[in-house]
Amino acid sequence: RDSQVHEKNEVGLVTGLAWTELGGSILQTEVQVLDGKGKMTPTGQLGDVMQESAQAALTWIRSRAHHLGLPEDFYRNIDIHLHVPEGAIPKDGPSAGITMATALASALTKIPVRRDIAMTGEITLRGKVLPIGGLKEKLLAAHRAGIFEAIMPADNKRDFNDLPELIRTSMKLHFVESMDEVLEIALAGKLPKLEEETPQALEQMLPPQQRDGVPSSARQ
Amino acid sequence: RDSQVHEKNEVGLVTGLAWTELGGSILQTEVQVLDGKGKMTPTGQLGDVMQESAQAALTWIRSRAHHLGLPEDFYRNIDIHLHVPEGAIPKDGPSAGITMATALASALTKIPVRRDIAMTGEITLRGKVLPIGGLKEKLLAAHRAGIFEAIMPADNKRDFNDLPELIRTSMKLHFVESMDEVLEIALAGKLPKLEEETPQALEQMLPPQQRDGVPSSARQ
Amino acid sequence: RDSQVHEKNEVGLVTGLAWTELGGSILQTEVQVLDGKGKMTPTGQLGDVMQESAQAALTWIRSRAHHLGLPEDFYRNIDIHLHVPEGAIPKDGPSAGITMATALASALTKIPVRRDIAMTGEITLRGKVLPIGGLKEKLLAAHRAGIFEAIMPADNKRDFNDLPELIRTSMKLHFVESMDEVLEIALAGKLPKLEEETPQALEQMLPPQQRDGVPSSARQ
Amino acid sequence: RDSQVHEKNEVGLVTGLAWTELGGSILQTEVQVLDGKGKMTPTGQLGDVMQESAQAALTWIRSRAHHLGLPEDFYRNIDIHLHVPEGAIPKDGPSAGITMATALASALTKIPVRRDIAMTGEITLRGKVLPIGGLKEKLLAAHRAGIFEAIMPADNKRDFNDLPELIRTSMKLHFVESMDEVLEIALAGKLPKLEEETPQALEQMLPPQQRDGVPSSARQ
Amino acid sequence: RDSQVHEKNEVGLVTGLAWTELGGSILQTEVQVLDGKGKMTPTGQLGDVMQESAQAALTWIRSRAHHLGLPEDFYRNIDIHLHVPEGAIPKDGPSAGITMATALASALTKIPVRRDIAMTGEITLRGKVLPIGGLKEKLLAAHRAGIFEAIMPADNKRDFNDLPELIRTSMKLHFVESMDEVLEIALAGKLPKLEEETPQALEQMLPPQQRDGVPSSARQ
Amino acid sequence: RDSQVHEKNEVGLVTGLAWTELGGSILQTEVQVLDGKGKMTPTGQLGDVMQESAQAALTWIRSRAHHLGLPEDFYRNIDIHLHVPEGAIPKDGPSAGITMATALASALTKIPVRRDIAMTGEITLRGKVLPIGGLKEKLLAAHRAGIFEAIMPADNKRDFNDLPELIRTSMKLHFVESMDEVLEIALAGKLPKLEEETPQALEQMLPPQQRDGVPSSARQ
Ligand SMILES: [Ca+2]
Ligand SMILES: [Ca+2]
Ligand SMILES: [Ca+2]
Ligand SMILES: [Ca+2]
Ligand SMILES: [Ca+2]
Ligand SMILES: [Ca+2]
Ligand SMILES: [Ca+2]
Ligand SMILES: [Ca+2]
Ligand SMILES: [Ca+2]
Ligand SMILES: [Ca+2]
Ligand SMILES: [Ca+2]
Ligand SMILES: [Ca+2]
Repeated sequence: RDSQVHEKNEVGLVTGLAWTELGGSILQTEVQVLDGKGKMTPTGQLGDVMQESAQAALTWIRSRAHHLGLPEDFYRNIDIHLHVPEGAIPKDGPSAGITMATALASALTKIPVRRDIAMTGEITLRGKVLPIGGLKEKLLAAHRAGIFEAIMPADNKRDFNDLPELIRTSMKLHFVESMDEVLEIALAGKLPKLEEETPQALEQMLPPQQRDGVPSSARQ
Repeated sequence: RDSQVHEKNEVGLVTGLAWTELGGSILQTEVQVLDGKGKMTPTGQLGDVMQESAQAALTWIRSRAHHLGLPEDFYRNIDIHLHVPEGAIPKDGPSAGITMATALASALTKIPVRRDIAMTGEITLRGKVLPIGGLKEKLLAAHRAGIFEAIMPADNKRDFNDLPELIRTSMKLHFVESMDEVLEIALAGKLPKLEEETPQALEQMLPPQQRDGVPSSARQ
Repeated sequence: RDSQVHEKNEVGLVTGLAWTELGGSILQTEVQVLDGKGKMTPTGQLGDVMQESAQAALTWIRSRAHHLGLPEDFYRNIDIHLHVPEGAIPKDGPSAGITMATALASALTKIPVRRDIAMTGEITLRGKVLPIGGLKEKLLAAHRAGIFEAIMPADNKRDFNDLPELIRTSMKLHFVESMDEVLEIALAGKLPKLEEETPQALEQMLPPQQRDGVPSSARQ
Repeated sequence: RDSQVHEKNEVGLVTGLAWTELGGSILQTEVQVLDGKGKMTPTGQLGDVMQESAQAALTWIRSRAHHLGLPEDFYRNIDIHLHVPEGAIPKDGPSAGITMATALASALTKIPVRRDIAMTGEITLRGKVLPIGGLKEKLLAAHRAGIFEAIMPADNKRDFNDLPELIRTSMKLHFVESMDEVLEIALAGKLPKLEEETPQALEQMLPPQQRDGVPSSARQ
Repeated sequence: RDSQVHEKNEVGLVTGLAWTELGGSILQTEVQVLDGKGKMTPTGQLGDVMQESAQAALTWIRSRAHHLGLPEDFYRNIDIHLHVPEGAIPKDGPSAGITMATALASALTKIPVRRDIAMTGEITLRGKVLPIGGLKEKLLAAHRAGIFEAIMPADNKRDFNDLPELIRTSMKLHFVESMDEVLEIALAGKLPKLEEETPQALEQMLPPQQRDGVPSSARQ
Repeated sequence: RDSQVHEKNEVGLVTGLAWTELGGSILQTEVQVLDGKGKMTPTGQLGDVMQESAQAALTWIRSRAHHLGLPEDFYRNIDIHLHVPEGAIPKDGPSAGITMATALASALTKIPVRRDIAMTGEITLRGKVLPIGGLKEKLLAAHRAGIFEAIMPADNKRDFNDLPELIRTSMKLHFVESMDEVLEIALAGKLPKLEEETPQALEQMLPPQQRDGVPSSARQ
C-alpha cells in the first residue's frame, strides 16, 4: 500500500520510486540534521547496497559544500539521520541515490523540496546519475499516487518507447545527467550562485602553484 | 501474562500496545536519562526494526529540542537508557515508535505521562504517525488491562468499523496525525509554548539570508 | 555442584539463585570497581538477556547516585567488572537483575552484603522487581546451601502455596516490590538518608520553573 | 553492459579493467577527498581482497606523500571516499590495485587522469606492480569501449603472444614495474620533481646518525 | 609435544597446566607490558571462556594495585599483551586464571616467576581460587616436563587420593585458597608489605564518613 | 608460481617461507611505517593465527624499542601497514612470526634486510623462536627461488637428517634460539649497541627501590 504524498513542500523530505517483484511503489526519504559530531545514521531496514548509496550521496554533498552555501567543514558539528519509512519493509538497491542526495541537500540548505515530483537514479561520487531498472513500473506507481512529474537518468531514455501511452502523454519526464540538474528541478528554491571550489584544508597544504584545481605542470 | 499498569503517573514510563499471533498485550516502555556522553542504549531483546524505531524516536526528540524546552545540544551530556520489560521476551516491529518517543519526551522534560492511557503507532523523523496492524487485538488488550483511553494513527480510522462494539463504546480513542498531538494528549503537564525553531549551530554557519527556514530565493 | 557460600559478609559479592532443567542452584555474583573511564565489563559466559539485565541494573544504580551517596557523574572515572563464576558455565535470563544491582550498589558504596541471604528477581530501570520462574527449585537450592533467608518478587506470592512445607516453615522469605527494599534487607549497613533527587546537569539546562520534577503546568 | 567512458580528463576518476566468467569489462573507480579526520571509506560492494587492495593503495600513497607534493601528515585532516560504480554489482580481487592508487593520487594532487587510457595490476606497499589474470579479456573490453591505450604489469609480458592480433596492432600497451611509471603515463600533468624522502616524525625520534635512510653502521 | 621449560626464572613468564582428551600438557603463558593507553590484547587462539578468564585476572590485578606497589591508575599508560604459545593450537577453559594473573603480576612488578613450578586454577575477581578438572593428567604432564612443584585449588584436595603414588610422593603440591598465596609461592621475590587499600578516585568522591571501607552506619 | 626475489636489499621487505599441501613457496612480507596514531593494519588475506602472530611480532618490537634505537613511545605517532602479497591468496599459521618481526624491525630502524636470505619460525613475546613444520619443503622452495641461506628455529635441528643432500650441502642454514640472532644475521647493517632496558613510564610510577628490574626484596 502506497503512503499518500505529503500535503506541502517540506525540508528534507523527498519522494523516491522503488520497484519490487510486486510492482512499483513510491517511497518517502526523510532527513533530519541535528547538532552532533559528524555521524550519519541510515535507518528503515536498508540493505548493504542502499547504505553504500547513502554514503555516496553524502560524499557528493560534502564535496559540494561551497555550491550549497555551506562551510567546507559543516559536517563536523552535525549528526544526520536518513530514514526511509515504512520501518518494517526491507529495502535495497542503488536507485534511491539521487533521492537521498536531494533529501540531504534540502535538509542542509533548508530549501524545501517540491512535493509534486518523484525521482529515481543511482548516484556517483561526482554526482553523475547512472541508469536504473524498472522505470515503467516506477512511473506507473508515481502516476497512481497522483504525481505527474519525475526525474530519472538520461541513460534511461532508451526505455522511453516502452513506457505506456498514459505515462508518456500525461507526465512531465526529466532525463538528467547530473545531481546539479536534479536539485535545479526538485528544490522549491534556488541554491546560491555556483562557483568552482577547492577543499580549503587541502588548499593550505598544497604548494601555491598547485592550488585551485589547475596543477602547474598542466597549465603550460 | 500482562503486567498490571503502574499506580501513578510516572516520568519516563509509557504503556504501549503490542500484537503477536497469540493476541494483543500491553508493553511498558521506560526511559532513564543519565549523566553521560550522548549514548542511547535500547534493551529488552528488541529486534532490528524496533531498534531503528527507537533511533527515529530519538531523532525526532533531538530535532524538537526547543519545542521541549531543552537546549539544542542537550544530547551531548547525557546517556539515555530505553528498556522494554519483560527482559526475556523478544520484541520487534515499528509500532512502538510513538510510545518510545513519548517516554523519551517525558524523561527529558520530567513531565509525567498519564498512566490511564495506552498508545501504538509508527513514527517518522518529522513526527508523523504512520498506521499499524492488529488494532483490534491491541485495544482489547488495553481494555483487559483496565485502560480505557488510547492513541493510534489517523490512518487506522479505516479499521474503526471492525472494532468490537465493546471497544467502540467504552473506550476513548484518539486518532492522531503527529507526535505533537500524542504529547498533547499523553503528558500529564503542558510543554512550554511552541515556537518555530532553527538548529543554532547550523544557523551560525549559514549566510544570513538563508537563516530561519526561509531561503532567500524562495522568499520572492 | 553448588559452590559453598563465602565465610563473611563481603563488599560486592552477592548470592543469587538460578534455575535450569537440572534444578536450582546458587550463583555468586561479584563486582569490582576500578579506576577507569566509564566502562562496564560483564563476564562469566552471560547470554544476551542477562547482559541486558546487567545494563538495566547499572542504569538503576546510576539513576540513584544521590540515594547511594555518590556524585551524579561517579561513573565517568571508574570501570566496573561484573563477573559470575564459574566461568565455564553458560548463564542467561533476567532473574539475576536484583542480584547484580545489589552487587553494584555494595561495590560502589563499600557497604558489605549479608552472606546469609540469597535473592532472585528481574529489575526494571526504575528499580521495580518483576516476577521470575522456578521459585520452588531456587529456594530448595538456597536451603541445601545452608541459606535460610531469601528475597524475591512480590508478584511471586502467587507461588507461595506451591512451596514445600520445609521451605515455608524454615526459611524467612521477603516478597518485595522495589530495589530500595532489596538494599534495605540485603546490605549489612545503612545507606545515607534518602532524598528526592534531580540529575544536576539536566537541572541546569532546564528553565527554572521545570526543575525538581514538578513542571509548572502540572503545579496548578 | 559497459558504461561509456567519461568525456574529459577528470580528477580522481580512472578507468580500470575487470574480468569475470562472463568476460572482461571496464570499471570506473572514483575518489573524493573531503575535509575530515583520516578515514577511508571504500564502497561499491567490494569484496575483502579488493578492500585490502584499497588499503595497500592508500598506504603506498601515504608513504609517497613528499613525492606527490603533499605534507607527510596530509591524511589527518581529510576523509577519502573510494567508490566503484555500479553500486549493485559485487566486485573483488587484487587487480584494481593500481587503478585505485592512481585515483587516489589524482584526487589528492588534483592532477587529472587521462580519460583515453585503462589499467590493471596488483599493487604492493612499495608500489611494485604484480601480475594479474584475464589480460586478453580485459584488453578486449577496453577496445570495445573505445580505449586504445592500457597499462599492465611487466610480468604479464608472458601473455603478449596470446593476445589477439587486433589488440597487439591497434592498442598501445605499457608493461610496467612500478606505480611511479603508472602515474608518469596516466596523469594528464606532471608531479613535482622526485626527491628521496624520510618520514619526518620518525626522523625526529631517531638518533642523528640513523636519519635519512642510511644507518651509521651501514655507512662504513 | 611439550615445550621444554625455560632455563631461568623470567619476568612475565609462567608455566600453566592444561588438559585435553589427549592428556595433560604444560602451557607457557607470557605477558609483556608496553607503553600504551590501557588496552589488553590476549592472543594464542584463546576461546571465549579463556579470554574472560584473562579479563578476570586483570581486574584482580587492577583491584590489587596498591598491594603490588603500583599506583592505582597504572593501567592508563600501558598496553598489556598476554600470549599463550604455541600460536596455532586452540585453547579454552577457565583453569589458566591463576597462571595468567601470576604472569600479569610478575610483568607489572618485574619480580621474576620461579621456573621450577607449575600451576592451575580458576580465578575470581577477588582472587579466590576455584577448583578445576583433570588434576591427575595435569600433574603427570608437569612431572614429565621435569617440574616437581605445583599450585592448585584447595577445593581439589578431594582429588588427592586419586593421584598416582608417583605424584603424591615425588611432587610438592600446594593447595591454595587465594591468589595472594599463589604469588607468595610462585614469585622469586617478595611483594611490598601488604596494606588495606581504597580506590583513591572513589575515595575523593565519597562523603568522609564513608571512606576507608567502613560505612558510618556499620560502625556502631 | 613463486615471485622472484627482489633485486637489492630493501628496507621493510623480507623473504619468508611458507608451506601448503602443494609444497613450499617463498612469501614476501612488506612493512610500511606511516605518520599516524598507533594503528597496525595487517593485510594479504591473513588468517586468525597469522594475524595474532603479527601482533606478537609487533609486541616484541615494542618491548625492544631501546635495543632498536627507538624511543619507548615510538608507536604512538605512527601507523604500520604489514602486507603479504599476493593479495588474493589466503595465508595462515604462526611460522611467519620471525619474518614479520624482521620486516617491522627493518622498517622502523631503516636498516635494509639482506635479499639473499629467507626465514621461517614462530615468535613469542620475548623473541624466542619456536619450531615450525614443513622445513624440507620450505628449504626446497628457497633453493628453487635462488636463495641459498636460511634462518630457522633451533628446535628444528631434529629435522636436519631428513633434509635432502642438495639442501644440506648447498645451503647455509642458521638454527636460532632468538629474534636477536635473527636480526644479527638478516639485517644488512648493525643495530645500536644493546643495553638492558626498563619501560620509562612504568619506571616513573614505581617506588625507587623497584626500578631497573631488580626488586628490593630479591636483591639481598
Ligand atoms: Ca575551498
Ligand atoms: Ca576544511
Ligand atoms: Ca536554534
Ligand atoms: Ca548546537
Ligand atoms: Ca542532582
Ligand atoms: Ca552531571
Ligand atoms: Ca620527511
Ligand atoms: Ca609527521
Ligand atoms: Ca588508594
Ligand atoms: Ca585513580
Ligand atoms: Ca626505558
Ligand atoms: Ca613511555
